[in-house]
Amino acid sequence: MSDCIFCKIIQGEIPSVKIYEDDCVFAFMDINPISTGHTLIIPKMHAENIWEIPEADLAAIHVASKKIAQAMRNALDPLGVAALQLNGRGVNQLVMHYHLHLIPRTAEGPEIALTKWDLIPGNMAAIQKTGEKIAAALR
Amino acid sequence: MSDCIFCKIIQGEIPSVKIYEDDCVFAFMDINPISTGHTLIIPKMHAENIWEIPEADLAAIHVASKKIAQAMRNALDPLGVAALQLNGRGVNQLVMHYHLHLIPRTAEGPEIALTKWDLIPGNMAAIQKTGEKIAAALR
Repeated sequence: MSDCIFCKIIQGEIPSVKIYEDDCVFAFMDINPISTGHTLIIPKMHAENIWEIPEADLAAIHVASKKIAQAMRNALDPLGVAALQLNGRGVNQLVMHYHLHLIPRTAEGPEIALTKWDLIPGNMAAIQKTGEKIAAALR
Repeated sequence: MSDCIFCKIIQGEIPSVKIYEDDCVFAFMDINPISTGHTLIIPKMHAENIWEIPEADLAAIHVASKKIAQAMRNALDPLGVAALQLNGRGVNQLVMHYHLHLIPRTAEGPEIALTKWDLIPGNMAAIQKTGEKIAAALR
């Protein structure tokens, strides 16, 4: 898309620190990194989110993410790697081109806030009811 | 694995609110939900993390996640859906069986803390150097 910043990065119209590319996938360093090594993995074909992206591109993104996670392990020896992918402005998706964040936590880095949450058991009846709704919508 | 809580859930030894199952994938409601509809999607074959999981299972998980995200949209009409997947105790992976969190934010629900972070531009020279390390490890 002509006004999409990630499409422009793929086309080289906006510079980026590219780390990986194949037929379907492009990966580059996030310039607003949460941690050392924070990488974005995107489909070359524009798709806004998980609802729009074709299954083949989705699979390609995640197979590439495994290769990149392996490279992160070799290159950075992280304590762990978080993968985050946001769909919709309601969860603060900022660029409307599907992107997977791959965020390593290195030994010198602080805890990554987004991977830490309190475990608070939910109401089982409410969980059951919501589960039934989703399962019904899958049929 | 005999001592893995998610393997026990797949085998029905521990009850769960199942919402989806296919040959490779099992999905059920998280009992410590961050939001209404918080779902876990796991491979049936035990694998600890992104480094261990076979590519075919990884692709199957994410293709299933697209189906489930569509069902969430139909069932819950969320403002957005966040996908989070943690690898390693260093980023607070708690159950050592690969799992993808699919976390919808519904209109009545509060902002999801983990999807909100401050955009702080990084040091470009440091980003370049890290990118080169990861790219070199990919070759």
